[in-house]
Amino acid sequence: MDRDQSSVFDLAAVAAGSNGGNNDRLLPPARFVGAPQRPSTMPYTKYVAYGKQVPFDYPDRTWPGKTLKRAPRWCSVDLRDGNQALVDPMDPERKLRFWNLLMSIGFKEVEVGFPSASSTDYDFIRLLIERELIPDDVTIVVLTQAREHLIRKTYEALRGAKRAVVHFYNSVSVLQREVVFRKDKESIKKLATDAAELCKSLEHDAAGTDLYYEYSPESFSGAEPEYSLDVCNAVIDVIKPTPEHPMIINLPNTVEMTTPNVFADQVEYMSNNLSNRDSVVLSLHPHNDEGMAVAATELGMLAGADRVEGCLLGNGERTGNVDVCTIALNLLVQGVDPQLDFSDMPELRRTVEYCNQIKISERHPYVGSFVFTAFSGSHQDAIKKGLEARQQAALRDNADIENYLWLVPYLPIDPKDVGGSYEAIIRVNSQSGKGGMAYLLKTNHNIDLPKRLQVEFDRIVQHFADETKREVRDEDIWRLFKDEYLPIEKSGSTAAAGAVADREDSSLSQWGRLKLLKVSVSSGEDGSDTELKASVLDRGLTGVDEAVERQIEGKGNGPLDAFLNALSALDLTISVQDYVEHAMTAGSDALAASYVECKVGEPAEERVIWGVGIDSSVITSTLKAIISAVNRFER
Amino acid sequence: MDRDQSSVFDLAAVAAGSNGGNNDRLLPPARFVGAPQRPSTMPYTKYVAYGKQVPFDYPDRTWPGKTLKRAPRWCSVDLRDGNQALVDPMDPERKLRFWNLLMSIGFKEVEVGFPSASSTDYDFIRLLIERELIPDDVTIVVLTQAREHLIRKTYEALRGAKRAVVHFYNSVSVLQREVVFRKDKESIKKLATDAAELCKSLEHDAAGTDLYYEYSPESFSGAEPEYSLDVCNAVIDVIKPTPEHPMIINLPNTVEMTTPNVFADQVEYMSNNLSNRDSVVLSLHPHNDEGMAVAATELGMLAGADRVEGCLLGNGERTGNVDVCTIALNLLVQGVDPQLDFSDMPELRRTVEYCNQIKISERHPYVGSFVFTAFSGSHQDAIKKGLEARQQAALRDNADIENYLWLVPYLPIDPKDVGGSYEAIIRVNSQSGKGGMAYLLKTNHNIDLPKRLQVEFDRIVQHFADETKREVRDEDIWRLFKDEYLPIEKSGSTAAAGAVADREDSSLSQWGRLKLLKVSVSSGEDGSDTELKASVLDRGLTGVDEAVERQIEGKGNGPLDAFLNALSALDLTISVQDYVEHAMTAGSDALAASYVECKVGEPAEERVIWGVGIDSSVITSTLKAIISAVNRFER
Repeated sequence: MDRDQSSVFDLAAVAAGSNGGNNDRLLPPARFVGAPQRPSTMPYTKYVAYGKQVPFDYPDRTWPGKTLKRAPRWCSVDLRDGNQALVDPMDPERKLRFWNLLMSIGFKEVEVGFPSASSTDYDFIRLLIERELIPDDVTIVVLTQAREHLIRKTYEALRGAKRAVVHFYNSVSVLQREVVFRKDKESIKKLATDAAELCKSLEHDAAGTDLYYEYSPESFSGAEPEYSLDVCNAVIDVIKPTPEHPMIINLPNTVEMTTPNVFADQVEYMSNNLSNRDSVVLSLHPHNDEGMAVAATELGMLAGADRVEGCLLGNGERTGNVDVCTIALNLLVQGVDPQLDFSDMPELRRTVEYCNQIKISERHPYVGSFVFTAFSGSHQDAIKKGLEARQQAALRDNADIENYLWLVPYLPIDPKDVGGSYEAIIRVNSQSGKGGMAYLLKTNHNIDLPKRLQVEFDRIVQHFADETKREVRDEDIWRLFKDEYLPIEKSGSTAAAGAVADREDSSLSQWGRLKLLKVSVSSGEDGSDTELKASVLDRGLTGVDEAVERQIEGKGNGPLDAFLNALSALDLTISVQDYVEHAMTAGSDALAASYVECKVGEPAEERVIWGVGIDSSVITSTLKAIISAVNRFER
Repeated sequence: MDRDQSSVFDLAAVAAGSNGGNNDRLLPPARFVGAPQRPSTMPYTKYVAYGKQVPFDYPDRTWPGKTLKRAPRWCSVDLRDGNQALVDPMDPERKLRFWNLLMSIGFKEVEVGFPSASSTDYDFIRLLIERELIPDDVTIVVLTQAREHLIRKTYEALRGAKRAVVHFYNSVSVLQREVVFRKDKESIKKLATDAAELCKSLEHDAAGTDLYYEYSPESFSGAEPEYSLDVCNAVIDVIKPTPEHPMIINLPNTVEMTTPNVFADQVEYMSNNLSNRDSVVLSLHPHNDEGMAVAATELGMLAGADRVEGCLLGNGERTGNVDVCTIALNLLVQGVDPQLDFSDMPELRRTVEYCNQIKISERHPYVGSFVFTAFSGSHQDAIKKGLEARQQAALRDNADIENYLWLVPYLPIDPKDVGGSYEAIIRVNSQSGKGGMAYLLKTNHNIDLPKRLQVEFDRIVQHFADETKREVRDEDIWRLFKDEYLPIEKSGSTAAAGAVADREDSSLSQWGRLKLLKVSVSSGEDGSDTELKASVLDRGLTGVDEAVERQIEGKGNGPLDAFLNALSALDLTISVQDYVEHAMTAGSDALAASYVECKVGEPAEERVIWGVGIDSSVITSTLKAIISAVNRFER
């Protein structure tokens, strides 16, 4: 029967009409604050809801209560569906490079082309076979239309292959039945069974090859599932697969038309109703038109699919096939072995971008340049604490940190597991808080700022970020920190010089009034009668040219106390609120960093201010921290 | 209670251990063809299944049986969450440009910044208010942490705003409770209720502004839903929203941790159990770590959410916030008014890429450069037929084609509805069949090839594609077609010259033996006694230099028949198998295109071959088509 070409539009018009009678699609959201949204001028009446095109309900669904527990059978279609969607399809060199990448990742099934339609594909398949590039445990898949001369040519292309899947298809969607084929359901089903019979009848042309079949009811998502089931079961009846020698039934979400729960319902319905289910590998082939291909695939796996066809990083017609990397790594972070090796995503990205000549977005899951970065201050702070907690737990358990449990806020995967590093994680901009800055100082400069000092220094970083309106890089933070807290030293003049030698180009006047030149400390048995003598260069309040070397001394119950008392000779009133010290590196000759929170000045003008000192002697570093605070007060 | 910092790792170790006892995660797929996949070396034991981290089951779910029927309340977070994730956050010029874009699209809620943390944000909000750039029906949202001086600063930033939402948050996830805050559940809940009380107590600082509240249990997806519910209900108890003056409860999928059905279960649970549900706007804030943010959002909408926070084209921390454009256009193709205007996606893309300084992928749904292209031959053929069927149906219904039902294979949306065109749809490469080539000839050159001629010409295009290994552009196809079928003419020498004038640079010998110079036809009453006289330039079989002008004549029952008889004088045996003619443009002076399928040659060497002629006279174009076929035969 050739139906009138416009009948699908008649059905749609009815559906659109009845939908139009339902004003839901024009209604504002049920609840909102402020003023309502307005109707747009977008021509929504042109479109027919999916449920009106393909009515289907499956209340027997069980997939929403399930979880993913093992990897599916993977089939890469990069060299076929991916390749056909490129402006410039791969030449043999790029194809071979892609093939080698797929082998190194661990794919055991690869669709390699459409040999009867493209001589490039034909030649590439011959090259794979003749150069013996197909490992024994790898099965190639070839696509063909079911016409005698094309199948013969396909089998010719396979000559000498140890094992292969012949993949034939025809579209079963309501729309294509009517506007493309202009045939009724029975005739379309006969296309499929005739194709299966033709393949089987010409099988002897592929003698020596262990031959399997794959059938795709193409545009499955545009067809009534009951009809797709009928067609697939008819094909299964012809092919007669067995559990030992199964066939593949592949359900293409050729065009993604609605939410993935609907696709999952359809998959579960198929899985539950296919003939000889034990002899059928149920496969999915989702595209990404609505941006939900990964979800459609994962929900389809919950619904019973055994096998997934997709491309690396989601290449393929239009919006692409589903991205196999994302699904595999989603399984990994559920503690499931993906059975594919994605341990070097940066290299994979380079190869795929080279072969496809398409750039991947900076925000592409697991591989985009920005996906392991955190600019938000609270995120940075949480990541810092999470990494520390993990390290402590691993130490406590005496476990190898590389393989220790990964539980870190805002980082769903350990960047190192996919070939990344921690270096790029924390990046600081005007939107960042103190966490990022503190993390960078600690990670790159062994400076572990106390919390209140973070707050103080953060104002300086924020000011810089607001002024420059760009990312604040690690070198910016380190320069700001040194300018604010550390003295200017001559290169090589002290053991601490290495850390600060690069500051000689800064203005001396930035540093301020005092500089510690020498110090000697003596104390009795318990330190309570400490005596301290120091030599201090005093530039006064106005600058460098009035510098005078002063000898000061003081007593106290420790060097800090004694030094404060000594400083009173310079008319300085200082009390210490808090201090923290730590070694900057391991070993007895390590530098020490001291952070001292001081109250400086007469009561009327007193301020709480931090100072920082770095020295190989923990005494000297503490005294330098006091001087740092004093100098900052005087500035 | 300060719990031991490592306790979350202890829980996880237990979970990982028990998971490890279940070998499912190592098992191969249930069914497959060929050899099994191998275990990878990916460190899957580092990761704990989501269900072990956050056990939750919700068999009462009803969302899988629902469909999307109206737009949610939209809130753009481009200027806050999106902006904070940029290497270089927007300067005021870029921010203002983005704001204007959001206004033109129709957003009625926009989160504009974190004014207490960033002076850039503060200044921008003041600029919006002081320059009166906020339309009366638009509500701004500002994010803040709940500390007194920050809230005061936030209210200061809002001074003069007509209406605003103050958005406060704290993380509730298991992991952050333990490694970041080191507080128990009650203490974390108190952080939230204290924040709510503090906001309310300082409300008088925002006198004159119609103030609403939004609370986010941040990292919602990492927390037990029962606990998130408890915290949210406690906050609702403090804020005391009413149906007339609701508050927003926003559920952040801060880090996407598993399949979207789980998030939907959690959303439905919250929607069903929140206090004062009629006074709560239930909002979603999904991120895209696992590539399923669009799905999580749409399933969350099925599950009861009223409101969606996201960014244009999916900008935002790491893999981005959910892409609002994709969701809105997914609604459109379901026949639902998205209440946002995305009619010029190319311009939107340019603005967003400029403001964010991040390029969008070529395969991004609805806007990537390749998403309306079809390289596959069968897709091209189906699109061509679909567009024709739609046009016929619209003509029949006497309907405006622009607004007529859109049902076209492989094109889920009319490109024109989002600012695209049909020109880029069909692109031809070595993987394409005849459909694309035929479409381009028809669309761009008014050449509507008969099916068997498509097959013939397709071999020539395929050969070219295989040789050049690049995209076959429209100009390539047109040149190949002219070289193969059309004569070389002097510019201006005939009415048809315009169509073929640019061929003068081609080699004359390519065209072949015969050229029609003149023709006269006379016939009686019924055309059966047609007499035809023609003047033909005959270059013989060897080339140009032997050209001789020949006068030939013949009789027949029409000009075609008479011309074939006349050609027998040149020792040519030709019979016509089929022919098709059509006007190339409208009007009586239009060019005609003729396609003639001829059997040429003596029986021993006869071949079936097509010829093509173009002329303003339909007689001449037919005769030229015969000559085209003869010349191709002789070549």
